[in-house]
Amino acid sequence: MTTSGSFERLDRDECLRLIAPGGIGRVGFDDGEGPSVLPVNYVVAGDTVVFRTSFGGRINSGVSTAVRGAEARVAFEVDAIDAERHAGWSVLLRGPAHHLTAAEVEALPDVRPWAGGERESYVSLRPVEVSGRRVG
Amino acid sequence: MTTSGSFERLDRDECLRLIAPGGIGRVGFDDGEGPSVLPVNYVVAGDTVVFRTSFGGRINSGVSTAVRGAEARVAFEVDAIDAERHAGWSVLLRGPAHHLTAAEVEALPDVRPWAGGERESYVSLRPVEVSGRRVG
Repeated sequence: MTTSGSFERLDRDECLRLIAPGGIGRVGFDDGEGPSVLPVNYVVAGDTVVFRTSFGGRINSGVSTAVRGAEARVAFEVDAIDAERHAGWSVLLRGPAHHLTAAEVEALPDVRPWAGGERESYVSLRPVEVSGRRVG
Repeated sequence: MTTSGSFERLDRDECLRLIAPGGIGRVGFDDGEGPSVLPVNYVVAGDTVVFRTSFGGRINSGVSTAVRGAEARVAFEVDAIDAERHAGWSVLLRGPAHHLTAAEVEALPDVRPWAGGERESYVSLRPVEVSGRRVG
């Protein structure tokens, strides 16, 4: 837990460029008993981030329930940090989220919809707040 | 975003073993405007997880403010996931958090306290809920 020197705030365009490839992100939400954080697979689709409510075939019912509210807000964090060198970047998106309809899922690129018999669902986050930083 | 097969729930002991080396985790909290998630450096000290409220020298005032409440609850997530192979593990801790006093910081192993002039502080999380899973 040492402190490195440099810190740089990233602008919105740079943040969106960094997360564009998709991969693993962490969704932050309130499951009714307080803050929760879970890793999810995500893709960027247009100006939204889409992630599944399951990982490894298991449904994260907390996420699913949290975004049922009409005004559900979630946080979505993506980073690439070298713990040894204490260097890297992180991006935080915040905004309203909703479950995708089956038609919306079919329209997505690079998403394999509705894998065999699973009742998993997809959540779309529209980032209203975008912030990021690079350190080290 | 493909689905892998296996899923295994991890027990508390296994979760604590996985996070014991310390490194990078993600803290989830409510900053008053909804959920937020930020990466932090952490160490395990006894039965608590300790992390700094700064990363790369920048104070995350949101975290700091969130744990000022007497009954502040935060989430803390650690994972090691291979996005290509879609395999790995994640651990989620939840519980009350408080700012460490200067004396508590000095008693910590492996923590460099109060780096030159910074007003950063340390937060201790006592995990009441511990859950984890391994996939792939």
